[in-house]
Amino acid sequence: MKEELKIFYHIFTTTKDAIEKFMNMLDPVIQNAIDDHERLYYHHIFEEEEQRLSRLVVLIPLIQKFQQEKEEKDFSPTNNEFNRLLQELNLEKFGLHNFVEHLDLALFRFKDEERSTLLNQLREVSYKDYQQVKAMLAEINGRFDTNYVDPHAYHDEEHDHLDRSATSAPTKATTTTNSRGMQPKKGFTVGSLI
Amino acid sequence: MKEELKIFYHIFTTTKDAIEKFMNMLDPVIQNAIDDHERLYYHHIFEEEEQRLSRLVVLIPLIQKFQQEKEEKDFSPTNNEFNRLLQELNLEKFGLHNFVEHLDLALFRFKDEERSTLLNQLREVSYKDYQQVKAMLAEINGRFDTNYVDPHAYHDEEHDHLDRSATSAPTKATTTTNSRGMQPKKGFTVGSLI
Ligand SMILES: [Fe+2]
Ligand SMILES: [Fe+2]
Repeated sequence: MKEELKIFYHIFTTTKDAIEKFMNMLDPVIQNAIDDHERLYYHHIFEEEEQRLSRLVVLIPLIQKFQQEKEEKDFSPTNNEFNRLLQELNLEKFGLHNFVEHLDLALFRFKDEERSTLLNQLREVSYKDYQQVKAMLAEINGRFDTNYVDPHAYHDEEHDHLDRSATSAPTKATTTTNSRGMQPKKGFTVGSLI
Repeated sequence: MKEELKIFYHIFTTTKDAIEKFMNMLDPVIQNAIDDHERLYYHHIFEEEEQRLSRLVVLIPLIQKFQQEKEEKDFSPTNNEFNRLLQELNLEKFGLHNFVEHLDLALFRFKDEERSTLLNQLREVSYKDYQQVKAMLAEINGRFDTNYVDPHAYHDEEHDHLDRSATSAPTKATTTTNSRGMQPKKGFTVGSLI
């Protein structure tokens, strides 16, 4: 677990810097928005990343605490603080996933050299980190036999729609399958998720 | 606390239904999106609400458990499960906030009678519920002297930008102040948040 904590620490300090870069890019966009719709749109993304940042500010010291003070026996689901750590990590897996999509959405709009270069850099790192966090948490959740259910699991069964190489396939058909595969009415009952 | 739990239960079961209605509305929009940008945009919102739904599926039974089994003495920060409940409630306050904005963003696009009526209904209830959750949690966090820091607190100091009545003031100026008030470079250091 020590080795994994080291990787988590690295990933979440990296993404914390990335959020700040992204927010700095969005700030003038919000100030100079051409209408209310555009302003709300970027302001909304800004706020979601701001919420994520405020959670990371708590999570990163928690990871450090486990890195420095704890023995291997403390990495157990009977330890309440370890459970909290796992729960936060599972939440921030989605935070990373959503960040990749925020970057993709921004890439549709900001085509100039400077911003698209920055966005592509952040996107590349964040996507790789998201994949690694997802794989590590799948392994950890399995190892500790937590009851954690991944609400995105059925996406992953089909394909990972964040994977850019997958979009070389006809995008329309791919995403339609994805959307249909969700079947909100059928899939989102309490019984099927817990 | 019993009375507050009853209100939380009501609000989060209501918003759970609202998510399902919203997702059902978005599903055909995603399937019939005119381009990749639009598809990603609605798919992204769909997924964020899906993530929130999967958290509510865990939170609602936790609220019920505290409603049914616990005595007043269990509502204490020394009780780990109570801490978890408070933490989840604080997270879902942002979930409600973001939902109101998702509805506002959708209202910019879906102007037809049927969808705008539904969206406005959901928006009205969600905004009221968000305000109530925010007020109740401010009181509870104060009562138990938790170390919880609200990353949105400085928004609220100026005004609540979700409040539609506030947008009767010049929107451009209001939101510019809001955006400037955030000052990402200065405001989002670790030291200022914890
Ligand atoms: Fe988002
Ligand atoms: Fe969102």
